[in-house]
Amino acid sequence: MRMRFEKLSPSQLIVSFYFFAVLISVALLSLPIALKPGVEWSFIDVLFTAVSAISVTGLAVVSTPDTFSTTGIFILMFILQFGGIGIMTLGTFFWLILGRKIGLKERQLIKTDQNQSSLSGLVILMKNILIIIVVIELVGGLLLGTYFLGYFPTWQEAFLQGMFASVSATTNAGFDITGQSLIPFAHDYYVQTVNIVLLTLGAIGFPVLIELKDYFASRNTRKRAHFSLYTKLTTTTFFGLMLFGTLAILLLEFNHFFADKTWHESFFYAFFQSSTTRNGGLATVDVSLFTNPTLLVISGLMFIGASPSSVGGGVRTTTVAIILLFLYSFARGRKSVKVFNREFEPEDILKSMAVMSTALLLCFIAVIVLSITEPFSTMQLIFEVASAFGTTGLSMGITPELSPTGKMIIILLMFIGRIGILSFITIISRPGADDLYHFPREKVIIG
Amino acid sequence: MRMRFEKLSPSQLIVSFYFFAVLISVALLSLPIALKPGVEWSFIDVLFTAVSAISVTGLAVVSTPDTFSTTGIFILMFILQFGGIGIMTLGTFFWLILGRKIGLKERQLIKTDQNQSSLSGLVILMKNILIIIVVIELVGGLLLGTYFLGYFPTWQEAFLQGMFASVSATTNAGFDITGQSLIPFAHDYYVQTVNIVLLTLGAIGFPVLIELKDYFASRNTRKRAHFSLYTKLTTTTFFGLMLFGTLAILLLEFNHFFADKTWHESFFYAFFQSSTTRNGGLATVDVSLFTNPTLLVISGLMFIGASPSSVGGGVRTTTVAIILLFLYSFARGRKSVKVFNREFEPEDILKSMAVMSTALLLCFIAVIVLSITEPFSTMQLIFEVASAFGTTGLSMGITPELSPTGKMIIILLMFIGRIGILSFITIISRPGADDLYHFPREKVIIG
Ligand SMILES: [K+]
Ligand SMILES: [K+]
Repeated sequence: MRMRFEKLSPSQLIVSFYFFAVLISVALLSLPIALKPGVEWSFIDVLFTAVSAISVTGLAVVSTPDTFSTTGIFILMFILQFGGIGIMTLGTFFWLILGRKIGLKERQLIKTDQNQSSLSGLVILMKNILIIIVVIELVGGLLLGTYFLGYFPTWQEAFLQGMFASVSATTNAGFDITGQSLIPFAHDYYVQTVNIVLLTLGAIGFPVLIELKDYFASRNTRKRAHFSLYTKLTTTTFFGLMLFGTLAILLLEFNHFFADKTWHESFFYAFFQSSTTRNGGLATVDVSLFTNPTLLVISGLMFIGASPSSVGGGVRTTTVAIILLFLYSFARGRKSVKVFNREFEPEDILKSMAVMSTALLLCFIAVIVLSITEPFSTMQLIFEVASAFGTTGLSMGITPELSPTGKMIIILLMFIGRIGILSFITIISRPGADDLYHFPREKVIIG
Repeated sequence: MRMRFEKLSPSQLIVSFYFFAVLISVALLSLPIALKPGVEWSFIDVLFTAVSAISVTGLAVVSTPDTFSTTGIFILMFILQFGGIGIMTLGTFFWLILGRKIGLKERQLIKTDQNQSSLSGLVILMKNILIIIVVIELVGGLLLGTYFLGYFPTWQEAFLQGMFASVSATTNAGFDITGQSLIPFAHDYYVQTVNIVLLTLGAIGFPVLIELKDYFASRNTRKRAHFSLYTKLTTTTFFGLMLFGTLAILLLEFNHFFADKTWHESFFYAFFQSSTTRNGGLATVDVSLFTNPTLLVISGLMFIGASPSSVGGGVRTTTVAIILLFLYSFARGRKSVKVFNREFEPEDILKSMAVMSTALLLCFIAVIVLSITEPFSTMQLIFEVASAFGTTGLSMGITPELSPTGKMIIILLMFIGRIGILSFITIISRPGADDLYHFPREKVIIG
């Protein structure tokens, strides 16, 4: 057994660990104390909820407040935390607490999960991530809980709601215990702003937070910390997408959904819904009220998803940024791709292309299969698939009505979206075994 | 003026030539003698028809038999021929006829148009192409014309119909003068078989035909001709897609469209509609009767399109084959992509990726814009966009009802689909000017 474990590649181990995390979540969510009295649910719905929570997607086949007891909500919060911060991060933490030495095998595991390209200092990084996230969640919980004192009868309920909302936002889980996402707060710009900040901190990428911390820590010292190409690239793309989404939604809904809204209402609707595609999944509006062009743009944004090494899914911001920069360089006839006074490794360009092509193929096949089993429109299916793969969790409302086959497909997409396309495709990897011989190269006519 | 012309890159020249070909076609189709008495049409419809003909797409905003006089049909046939075989091929031919020397500039032009990777022997190749195509068309015209003698009152009409059908099939133009595509021949397996053979010969790629000719010519000599990697790759992909399409349509429509059909009817419906996506555009059935999964599969097949260096459009077979083979190699952890005892040039892999990403981005934007201006479902728009970009010409019936903006978008897609994504993206190319300096390489976290 030990031998077998040792033989697995990091990708295979990550997939196995997430798989076991899903099994444990299924067991926890099936406990009678997790449910409200009288609630019964099918196995496929328990599995769906478990995967949705572990992958911090937030698509829901059942109403969270109607299904879970207070204990159940705590269990759900624990699963979100576990899934959002990454099983490996928590694993490292437990290893540290138990005083065990972190071996190279375990370090490699963490590397694959958070997609880190350097092994050194990874354990410290993980500790930092955990501390940063917990601090952010506590501050968010306080800010929201205090504010909720005016909304809920008891302080316990106000702070439970505040803490759940904060964890759900920071881990970009998209679950809600109001039963209506953030629609009741559609005109509460304070709650929305706190949420957008929390969503962004969770989805911007942990290394960005670490580098930001180092940067400010080194402000007064001689040797100033520098930002990596990764941080510059992902941050630019992240806020670029947020801005693009806001403008696109404003423009496309100007004569439709926003026709009877004030400028600040329109702005906050557009800004919140754009931010949430990066990939919170909370919404201040029933998205099915939007027109098709808006829904297609949102689908595209959800498919792109969050930064790598964050709580989010999708093909990730850097993948899209590298491909767009490559396309521009290619069109200009350049051989190398330059940005921020750096050049990409050719290998990274190929990696991005592999991720993008596989993701598109996967989602296309998913839409086709769903259009066989489900009675919904192509638009609704595209939206649902993009949301599941991006682990975003927005929905045009079809999730609870999916057939068991449809639910299984969404479950698979959420799972792959969370473990990441790279881990998914390299499951069949057999490194080193194939490049021992070579054939002559030959050019081919293309395009 | 001459200076400016000389300064243009091959891609820019190709685009300019196709642009002028469109202008001339617009002029020809506007001639009163081209039209039936009393027919009047708007400029956008003339432009649409001209681009649809030059790009041999076959999408139609007007009914061909109701609009054009016999002279008009001959003009249309001439435009199809011109567009299908490639303006450059005909240009070479005229140059040869006029006894003019073919310079390197002109050779480079042909190279870009037919995407040939070797300059040597290109002029001979072009002459061969023209001869082969004309022979194929004449044989097809005879086979169909003779058969049509039983259907039409006069032999002139029978052979006009036969010749038009043969040219339209061989150039994969998809235009018809029956007014109902090949639906009247839904049960005529002879006409369908002849059409499938002609469609395939036009779309399989000219170099394949040439290599096949050389192979058979060298059969009895000592030095046997060999097939290139291109020919092996594109032929395998071509017939692989044809088989996949047939099986997919059979399977997906088994309980729907084929529910009341015999096995041979079902097979021919599936086989013909699969073949036509590669990219004839003729149909023996109103495709809007198919279910959504079938329509999505057909959209995907149309988007892929024909072989490069053929009469067809789309991202082309080799692009898809290279990407799929690359994905498999990447997933297995290999550094090189091996197939048929050869390896691809790394540059060709990047080229395929550039073509695929640009094409997908382009089509996605087209669907979004069309969903703003048109009242049709996402499925109908995806189908129309894939058909236009693939220059296939199948439609769920929305083409004549498109708004002027919608028509302009389809016109652009047909144009880009024909000139090819590679020519399209390298319009802004400025080769050589940029790789004089380098920045340090830096790795980035991906996917
Ligand atoms: K989410
Ligand atoms: K066509």
